[in-house]
Amino acid sequence: MNSRAYVEKHQDRFINELINLLKIPSISADSSYKASMKDAAQMVADQLESAGCDRVKIYPTKGHAVVFGEKIIDASLPTVLVYGHYDVQPPDPLGLWDSPPFKPVIKKTDIHPDGAIFARGACDDKGQMYMHVKAFEFMMAENDLPCNVKFMIEGEEEVGSEHLEDFINEHNAMLANDVILISDTGMISKEHPSITTGLRGLSYVEVEVTGPNRDLHSGLYGGAVANPINILTQMIASLQDENNRITIPGFYDKVEELSKEERDKMAEAPFNLEQYKQSIGIGDVHGEKGYTTNERNSIRPTLDVNGIWGGYIGEGAKTVIPSKAFAKISMRLVPNQDWKGITELFKTHFESIAPESVKVEVKPHHGGQGYVTPIDSIEYQAADKAFQDTFGKSAIPLRSGGSIPIVSLFENAFNSKTILMGFGLDTDAIHSPNEHFGVWNFLKGIETIPHFYKHFTALKA
Amino acid sequence: MNSRAYVEKHQDRFINELINLLKIPSISADSSYKASMKDAAQMVADQLESAGCDRVKIYPTKGHAVVFGEKIIDASLPTVLVYGHYDVQPPDPLGLWDSPPFKPVIKKTDIHPDGAIFARGACDDKGQMYMHVKAFEFMMAENDLPCNVKFMIEGEEEVGSEHLEDFINEHNAMLANDVILISDTGMISKEHPSITTGLRGLSYVEVEVTGPNRDLHSGLYGGAVANPINILTQMIASLQDENNRITIPGFYDKVEELSKEERDKMAEAPFNLEQYKQSIGIGDVHGEKGYTTNERNSIRPTLDVNGIWGGYIGEGAKTVIPSKAFAKISMRLVPNQDWKGITELFKTHFESIAPESVKVEVKPHHGGQGYVTPIDSIEYQAADKAFQDTFGKSAIPLRSGGSIPIVSLFENAFNSKTILMGFGLDTDAIHSPNEHFGVWNFLKGIETIPHFYKHFTALKA
Repeated sequence: MNSRAYVEKHQDRFINELINLLKIPSISADSSYKASMKDAAQMVADQLESAGCDRVKIYPTKGHAVVFGEKIIDASLPTVLVYGHYDVQPPDPLGLWDSPPFKPVIKKTDIHPDGAIFARGACDDKGQMYMHVKAFEFMMAENDLPCNVKFMIEGEEEVGSEHLEDFINEHNAMLANDVILISDTGMISKEHPSITTGLRGLSYVEVEVTGPNRDLHSGLYGGAVANPINILTQMIASLQDENNRITIPGFYDKVEELSKEERDKMAEAPFNLEQYKQSIGIGDVHGEKGYTTNERNSIRPTLDVNGIWGGYIGEGAKTVIPSKAFAKISMRLVPNQDWKGITELFKTHFESIAPESVKVEVKPHHGGQGYVTPIDSIEYQAADKAFQDTFGKSAIPLRSGGSIPIVSLFENAFNSKTILMGFGLDTDAIHSPNEHFGVWNFLKGIETIPHFYKHFTALKA
Repeated sequence: MNSRAYVEKHQDRFINELINLLKIPSISADSSYKASMKDAAQMVADQLESAGCDRVKIYPTKGHAVVFGEKIIDASLPTVLVYGHYDVQPPDPLGLWDSPPFKPVIKKTDIHPDGAIFARGACDDKGQMYMHVKAFEFMMAENDLPCNVKFMIEGEEEVGSEHLEDFINEHNAMLANDVILISDTGMISKEHPSITTGLRGLSYVEVEVTGPNRDLHSGLYGGAVANPINILTQMIASLQDENNRITIPGFYDKVEELSKEERDKMAEAPFNLEQYKQSIGIGDVHGEKGYTTNERNSIRPTLDVNGIWGGYIGEGAKTVIPSKAFAKISMRLVPNQDWKGITELFKTHFESIAPESVKVEVKPHHGGQGYVTPIDSIEYQAADKAFQDTFGKSAIPLRSGGSIPIVSLFENAFNSKTILMGFGLDTDAIHSPNEHFGVWNFLKGIETIPHFYKHFTALKA
């Protein structure tokens, strides 16, 4: 039977298996969830094995483990390397979840009349990663696997894949492939399949501003001593100008400027500004002058404060000048901006603008390079044909604002192209409370993926 | 025997009684400490009674209770109203205390070779308030009380004395007095007794900036949507200019400008800038251009962020654009600045500078008027003579940067002057971790206070 029939026959089991995986709170950022990380890795390994993988193994790293498995049917045939991750973002703020983040429930929504699975990681990336495991199960069960396949499912994507580079270098031969296939992005809509052709890089830093050596009474000292919170707000505010351009010297030096043709082509992607504003409840959009919303969140770099804290944040009032104030700041980068170079530029600039009255420390967290790929490659064509088979229409090439730092790492390490075949929607609230993944999207992914294997193998022949 | 001999005889008991009071975590800002607030009020009432007060009663308010007690020896004699408070500031950040804030310990320090009592509230204000209870005990025990006395010890000073005005209006006759005596301020040093002749007012507000209706992925939305933390930092930064002057329109309209003579007189108070910087570990002072450190923290208004929070503040990294960001902001005001008017100016201005892309809410917390008093009054002279008796030198008149919002309220309600006779030191770390109060200062206060009663009664005769 074909993949559609197989999915229809087994869909209830597929959903229940995913729900079991989603019950595990595999939060890589929080060291108190180490045991859950191990449980999630084990469940992925078990599922790969029962789907038909050989050489399934959980490889420890200095951080969280990588799960590997493969099926080599003929060394002369091409090999697809599937990448995904079993770790998830922290669920905070917990109070805003309608149901507990690790107690998955299926609820119907306007966009998902067939129901969506609500849980942290439902879309990013457990649900999308698991589509590949089930697509592989189908190809094995129906004797329909046209080429070799390898799985590399890691546990540190949400914390910058810190130890993946070492793993890849140590096991380069084992991971050798002809194409890297990833579902960790979105599609424009259920009616508009899309292939992500660009990703932004990332530089994530934490800053600490220290004023007095202890908290001070804001009456006795106020006005005479630098308040590290006031100073921090002034330093952060100065990082962007009135046109919302980043003021760090050299920040834009290597930013790729797209041609009018490219920008016009981007503008053709279906987009409704009013719906966009309504969907997130904002009175107006906000960003770099001279660029559209879709350009601002894809081909332009950013500087966002992801967290800030200092002083008294409890109930009521405390009249204090705190000793310290902190912020977590991330910059999304575009192709050609080197994340390590940008991190250095940030550190140098941020330290240089600190007044004598405070001390400043900048701690780099992690980062990754941006990525962009042409649409005339065999790999892209194979993915496009797969979408044509199951959606009846060609995919729209799309630049995403998100970052998958390891993509450019892969392309260098394996000298092969990456295909980002996403089935999630922007409205799935990944990284937010009430993250969910449409049941239709999950099943459609399982149905579509085998078509990529078929077309890629044919085009490579 | 005189007060010095009495103090020497009973000092161990005095210290142990204070330590028992300090063991009670009477944190008025935190509703989870309601029971401790009641315990503290009860202990104060019991001590007033055993010291010799009549009509001791704990008066409930809509917030925390007020403890009252009095001794009327002759209606034709003047009456001293002693004001103090039994509530304390929250002890956060707990991690910075060398010993638990509510487990008092006595340790020697360079400034306090006779030892200092370390505990939250040791100086502000349990220790200084209790000096008056023990001074009263002495005058009763030694038949040395020259006039009438009333005690009004409240439990909401650290949260703005919200319900004290109602209490005063309801019991105006009961509280009638000829002078209000308060020890809730400091002295310049153990060698330089001082009387506080000015206090700053206060306006305390909390602001909330809302961007999107939910937390967003900073990759998918970053650059296109207003980040409420970035916006909050820009809004707060804009409240002060490059000279550290506050930019709120009308903010300085009513600020009292001191004459050159007055500023020269202030400059005579002993002060060492290097010691000041060293004592709080700062590389440089920071404040309004054109004013000295002692002017900046006493006769000039301020704007300090006392707390800020938003986004992900846990371990590791989370790439999120939060829905909301918050800050607690307090402004210290000078005489003639009306705190309610300033709060309105802040609210109007802060809302006006918010971009279309966010919503802003400003919640006024509490506040109070500034205060300044002449030094040629009978009240001031009585206090000065008391210091001459026990310190052998005249007190230095001092403008304090702190706020005791109820002082101006008292003067209006009772039409009597307030004397701020402080025995704490700036180095006592009130409102900070490791707050302490010198044993010498505590005992010296008990010794000095009865002299005020004597001189005030004589001068009034």
